[in-house]
Amino acid sequence: MNVFIGCTAEYGDGEIVLFGAPFDGTASYRPGARFACSAARGASDSIETYSPYVDMDLTDAGVAVHDAGDLELPFGNAGRALRIIDEFTMKILRAGKLPFMVGGEHLVTYGAVCAAARIYPDLSIVQFDAHADLRDEYLGEKLSHATVMRRCWETTGDGRIFQFAVRSGERDEFEFADRHIFIDRFGFNRLTEALASPALSEKPVYLTIDLDALDPSECPGTGTPEAGGVRFSELLGAARAVIEKCNIVGLDVTELCPPVDHAGISVSLACKLVRELLLCAALKQR
Amino acid sequence: MNVFIGCTAEYGDGEIVLFGAPFDGTASYRPGARFACSAARGASDSIETYSPYVDMDLTDAGVAVHDAGDLELPFGNAGRALRIIDEFTMKILRAGKLPFMVGGEHLVTYGAVCAAARIYPDLSIVQFDAHADLRDEYLGEKLSHATVMRRCWETTGDGRIFQFAVRSGERDEFEFADRHIFIDRFGFNRLTEALASPALSEKPVYLTIDLDALDPSECPGTGTPEAGGVRFSELLGAARAVIEKCNIVGLDVTELCPPVDHAGISVSLACKLVRELLLCAALKQR
Amino acid sequence: MNVFIGCTAEYGDGEIVLFGAPFDGTASYRPGARFACSAARGASDSIETYSPYVDMDLTDAGVAVHDAGDLELPFGNAGRALRIIDEFTMKILRAGKLPFMVGGEHLVTYGAVCAAARIYPDLSIVQFDAHADLRDEYLGEKLSHATVMRRCWETTGDGRIFQFAVRSGERDEFEFADRHIFIDRFGFNRLTEALASPALSEKPVYLTIDLDALDPSECPGTGTPEAGGVRFSELLGAARAVIEKCNIVGLDVTELCPPVDHAGISVSLACKLVRELLLCAALKQR
Amino acid sequence: MNVFIGCTAEYGDGEIVLFGAPFDGTASYRPGARFACSAARGASDSIETYSPYVDMDLTDAGVAVHDAGDLELPFGNAGRALRIIDEFTMKILRAGKLPFMVGGEHLVTYGAVCAAARIYPDLSIVQFDAHADLRDEYLGEKLSHATVMRRCWETTGDGRIFQFAVRSGERDEFEFADRHIFIDRFGFNRLTEALASPALSEKPVYLTIDLDALDPSECPGTGTPEAGGVRFSELLGAARAVIEKCNIVGLDVTELCPPVDHAGISVSLACKLVRELLLCAALKQR
Amino acid sequence: MNVFIGCTAEYGDGEIVLFGAPFDGTASYRPGARFACSAARGASDSIETYSPYVDMDLTDAGVAVHDAGDLELPFGNAGRALRIIDEFTMKILRAGKLPFMVGGEHLVTYGAVCAAARIYPDLSIVQFDAHADLRDEYLGEKLSHATVMRRCWETTGDGRIFQFAVRSGERDEFEFADRHIFIDRFGFNRLTEALASPALSEKPVYLTIDLDALDPSECPGTGTPEAGGVRFSELLGAARAVIEKCNIVGLDVTELCPPVDHAGISVSLACKLVRELLLCAALKQR
Amino acid sequence: MNVFIGCTAEYGDGEIVLFGAPFDGTASYRPGARFACSAARGASDSIETYSPYVDMDLTDAGVAVHDAGDLELPFGNAGRALRIIDEFTMKILRAGKLPFMVGGEHLVTYGAVCAAARIYPDLSIVQFDAHADLRDEYLGEKLSHATVMRRCWETTGDGRIFQFAVRSGERDEFEFADRHIFIDRFGFNRLTEALASPALSEKPVYLTIDLDALDPSECPGTGTPEAGGVRFSELLGAARAVIEKCNIVGLDVTELCPPVDHAGISVSLACKLVRELLLCAALKQR
Repeated sequence: MNVFIGCTAEYGDGEIVLFGAPFDGTASYRPGARFACSAARGASDSIETYSPYVDMDLTDAGVAVHDAGDLELPFGNAGRALRIIDEFTMKILRAGKLPFMVGGEHLVTYGAVCAAARIYPDLSIVQFDAHADLRDEYLGEKLSHATVMRRCWETTGDGRIFQFAVRSGERDEFEFADRHIFIDRFGFNRLTEALASPALSEKPVYLTIDLDALDPSECPGTGTPEAGGVRFSELLGAARAVIEKCNIVGLDVTELCPPVDHAGISVSLACKLVRELLLCAALKQR
Repeated sequence: MNVFIGCTAEYGDGEIVLFGAPFDGTASYRPGARFACSAARGASDSIETYSPYVDMDLTDAGVAVHDAGDLELPFGNAGRALRIIDEFTMKILRAGKLPFMVGGEHLVTYGAVCAAARIYPDLSIVQFDAHADLRDEYLGEKLSHATVMRRCWETTGDGRIFQFAVRSGERDEFEFADRHIFIDRFGFNRLTEALASPALSEKPVYLTIDLDALDPSECPGTGTPEAGGVRFSELLGAARAVIEKCNIVGLDVTELCPPVDHAGISVSLACKLVRELLLCAALKQR
Repeated sequence: MNVFIGCTAEYGDGEIVLFGAPFDGTASYRPGARFACSAARGASDSIETYSPYVDMDLTDAGVAVHDAGDLELPFGNAGRALRIIDEFTMKILRAGKLPFMVGGEHLVTYGAVCAAARIYPDLSIVQFDAHADLRDEYLGEKLSHATVMRRCWETTGDGRIFQFAVRSGERDEFEFADRHIFIDRFGFNRLTEALASPALSEKPVYLTIDLDALDPSECPGTGTPEAGGVRFSELLGAARAVIEKCNIVGLDVTELCPPVDHAGISVSLACKLVRELLLCAALKQR
Repeated sequence: MNVFIGCTAEYGDGEIVLFGAPFDGTASYRPGARFACSAARGASDSIETYSPYVDMDLTDAGVAVHDAGDLELPFGNAGRALRIIDEFTMKILRAGKLPFMVGGEHLVTYGAVCAAARIYPDLSIVQFDAHADLRDEYLGEKLSHATVMRRCWETTGDGRIFQFAVRSGERDEFEFADRHIFIDRFGFNRLTEALASPALSEKPVYLTIDLDALDPSECPGTGTPEAGGVRFSELLGAARAVIEKCNIVGLDVTELCPPVDHAGISVSLACKLVRELLLCAALKQR
Repeated sequence: MNVFIGCTAEYGDGEIVLFGAPFDGTASYRPGARFACSAARGASDSIETYSPYVDMDLTDAGVAVHDAGDLELPFGNAGRALRIIDEFTMKILRAGKLPFMVGGEHLVTYGAVCAAARIYPDLSIVQFDAHADLRDEYLGEKLSHATVMRRCWETTGDGRIFQFAVRSGERDEFEFADRHIFIDRFGFNRLTEALASPALSEKPVYLTIDLDALDPSECPGTGTPEAGGVRFSELLGAARAVIEKCNIVGLDVTELCPPVDHAGISVSLACKLVRELLLCAALKQR
Repeated sequence: MNVFIGCTAEYGDGEIVLFGAPFDGTASYRPGARFACSAARGASDSIETYSPYVDMDLTDAGVAVHDAGDLELPFGNAGRALRIIDEFTMKILRAGKLPFMVGGEHLVTYGAVCAAARIYPDLSIVQFDAHADLRDEYLGEKLSHATVMRRCWETTGDGRIFQFAVRSGERDEFEFADRHIFIDRFGFNRLTEALASPALSEKPVYLTIDLDALDPSECPGTGTPEAGGVRFSELLGAARAVIEKCNIVGLDVTELCPPVDHAGISVSLACKLVRELLLCAALKQR
């Protein structure tokens, strides 16, 4: 009953399974992403199930989304939290359903990617993010929101990660990116080029969206705001393009941080983004 | 003495009468619009009376605005609140003055429109809004911020309502809009077309601005923020075009919600918008 | 699944039925009490089901509480909202269960009292409140948080209402109180005296707690804070005494206003109070 | 029309003149006291004009309070701000009226005391405050909220200042206090003793209340909160005793800082305190 | 230069070493205690170095406190964070100095206790806390703020832990407490009794203060506020008694959570508490 | 050790000297800019020292920035505060270093400009600002954030001040601007034209950035937000152009107001802006 608006399918019927990963244990600046999924669920009542963008409704026949609620994740143990996410994602994938995870901090993506890469060994990843997240370790820890894509790269190998809107990182991260992955600094200028590459057009793709890709003016409620971001309409357009053009096998939205979202505009934006992504993915599934 | 900055004309001298309608009784998500007009009045001291946009000053000869303060509206009785608004608007119109109402929630528009439509039976309405507000009822109630334009449509009839920047609503509302009114989804793309239509160019026009038409980044302090809105400069430009091209007989600015405007940028924007609209309307009156 | 912590009984098994009445339409100062019940439900996870005060646990055998969720109440129509509350309370009472309502503003009490008074025509009321709430009307409205006890008095008649901790009101209200009801200004000095009176010791009693009875330092999150209130331990002790000594047929906790409870201490206090009241009532039911 | 609730007398009729001194230029920790008087005026609508404590009403015959609004004080020039306060207070005193100033930071007291001491050369001062405010200078400035009582002492001389509830200061300040003034650390234990001294019982007295005398739990909205303060009921009782026993020739309430009073409980407490002090002073005037 | 006010001794000269442990990785409800120590350091400028309570000054000869800054603790790895705390505490103890840790969440205490218990195998612990913190595990984790005292008990054994002001926990925790430790529910009623026991009067003692022992009205800025707490003056008095009567070998103040301390009164209270504890400990060292 | 990230050069080695001027004594609307520099220093840890915009790092050889901390400025005495700023700036300039001041309110610029104009009598000024700041006095004061550029003009004379992004002021200010300085209303349309003028291309230039030039959506944390501002990327681009084209002898960033920056996006943006300006200036110095 207490589900994201319109996501009322039973698990068995759901073609898409929405679930929360309330973990923010490695957040180095401002914790609180743990509250993202429940906040979004609660605020989703204030948006409509109908999208005038695609003229579809979450309650339309053919849009079967199950909201599985939030995973119960331990505090202070990143490794175990990731294993729980990995197992749950695996269960969804094995049932032939599409996992849609709402974070949590960005590290949670690594759990889902591990599962997806086991099913799809040739997995590629599209990432929208202000930060490269490519450090090898952070304060001595291998598992961190600042290292998550480095860990993912260890799983996928070279040429399989496509980053967009990145505008912050250490020099080492950018040099690593230039050698091992595809990186589009500051925006989506090279999205078309990327979508045309075999790694995206012919491979299973996992889409991960760190909301700090957006400009902080539109999404202030995030752990590490970074000025100079993309607009909601740009991000939504890019995400739609990726879903339409690629074989999406999993996706997530991370780093919504409700405690610093005083006016609620980030939570409300995230609800709308989730709705649009669900509708777009459902349209694709048909 | 405690008036909106520069609006110091006596009632008898005022060609424009500014007044507040502090009602938010049907707000379904976040109440607080009742505080809008007094908050704007208080914050108006922080803006200038002079506008570099139009090189005019609220204190110039020829700009005679009277601030009548806030109406005393009952709580918990939408019907009676609307009757009080209706009567006060009627009094202003009968005195040959221009009513400029600051809400309150959007429902207050219905009170002013009822008065205007009695004086001008061929009234048209221009609405800037993120939401269609065209439901027939909401939780069993006919009078609601979510039904206000449906009620207005019952007053004006087909072809008389022109909506802009709408990006949220139920499917039914959009279908209703396509059949009965003019709707410009997401922005002001068809504003020129609309302004050229006889319903706007030859009829008395009431302009109602729901501030959630703006992007939540610029106006977070509103009851139901909706991502993907228009910018202040776009909205100001569109409003000016409407005032300049049409025979404006009344106007309002609604849905400013100070309790969620933590940094005060929405209240301050609203003050500036009111100043510009007042100057534009005064210029037209000359 | 999304219930107040420990209130997991099915409706059929529940001896106590907890429900929310999310209405704040007549709130004259700071709206937001509509969010109280869902906020308390959400925050209840942060308290324990076990009470060291009475050495009982909400999950103990014999403590059967059903959480019926929130009523769906219309906005802007106080009369209809009260009818819905009345009907739901009636249903609970007819099933031989104890209704425990979480407001909403204080007006919601009138709905529950109407139902209780129909079943128990000799109903008495115990009220903890900073305000007398005895006006005959407020801004022309008969139904208001400021008039609720006057309406209740019309139902119960003289000598049946017992107010405690009252420290604010118009002179007329205090004069009315002195003539028609029992009033204990500023605290619980005369509680023992009141409990010994036949109207409380021999009659069915409804207990209504407006949280603004508490000092604003302990419960800042309320619509109309009033300095000089009672402490949590005093209020809890007094409430326990009433439940233990009287034949309680219904009770409520009102006027929690989460939007102004920035540090969450009021919501958390309310959760604890609800737990203690539930345990105390359950103990009595045995 | 926009006055503190119930303070509707004309200047000529007012026996008490309430006015605001919106200056906080020397606030060293958290500025914002400049907003105190207008915030209190605005929030005063939420309290009653009637006091159940003294069974009097601000609108009763015999309680003639004029609200003169806020003084227009310059920013960044403490000396000139004090001169304006001095002159206005002098005007009130010369008209045989009682000045009641609402700060502003505590430095504003010096302006009023200068005026009072010119009219009443044998003036004594009663101060409720968490801080001694007896430094000789602060960061090189003689005029500061931290030096205000030292400046006042230069005006009154030894044995004329009576401090209560002081619990913070430098060692030098406490040593100065022990040599030159009467100081009651932490509370009001020696209030009776002080009131019996000739300096209070036989001389004109100015009462200055720094709201940080209160415990920060009851009054968080102040510039420099200091744990371990007195309760509202204690402070109110002490203030009443001073007004009843002494020949009060002026009084003030300072250091309310609305920007850090998120839940509004400090502003609301201050409104109630001002009402009670006004009633008490009016009762005395009779 | 950026140190807690007055704590300007060099490490070599410091008899007391103040340090921060900015870890909140297992906080289950509201994270943010990581910011406590730096927030307290920053706000300490707003208090005085002098205490009128004990007529001593942090800058007096004989009060030699070194502020070692914050430890650099990893995120998301509770075990490693504890090891770093353990090692640093060990270094201080071995140098014959007194460690004074400012958390961080309460789990950090376990790191310091491990070090102290290695040096002093017969260590006893005095704990002021709203919660028993005696669970064996929490969501599958052994290391958690909710299990910290259970872990400490594993180190000290029966009869060595003395809890005060506890008012929340599961039934199992209270039953465990009754069997294995000394517990004083709700306050300090049995403090004298406890201080007279050999385990406190004859053994080395570690004092740990969880700020949620205080009433949330005085200390709202904590992770898990619990109504019905003790007052600042009670807690300060009890802490002083413990320091004066016992052989204190280490102490800490934990669970200050600045992000929910909107008015800053909790941070300011914590600064004052730290100052008083430092002065009291220094007095003892003499 | 507590310095802006990466600004770790010793004073002697620093080619650029960063310092804070924590003064906001004349702020007329919302004080708090005094906290800007320390807030930025604290938050700078959350950004990287590396800039992907210019592929440089604050720690690179050749980027030698010394952070001198905050000046100790008096409260309530604008004149003395300005003299202290003037002297410190003079000291930096005489040492052949580049002063980079972080305000504080905009008035602080006058102190730095006075020093720079003494060294460079033919100084020109480039100003990015929402407000003209050209009043002759404000509430009787010559020294005010609202008069600062008028004072600067008195120093530089006609044709030496170049304003951009100005969109608010009194009519008199705009008329003054048209007669005596270069003003580009609303944006940077005429930047190229200005940079080509001899007053900028051939003279020493001081660059002052009032952050309210930015749109309030991107920088809500400022004293006087003004709708319709420029975007971060525009402002950054313009600032870079000025630094690259002109002979910059001093620069500042002012009017960041942390107390109203609830989500921290303004502080974080300011950190990034400071980093970019430092890198750009360092690149120029080479």
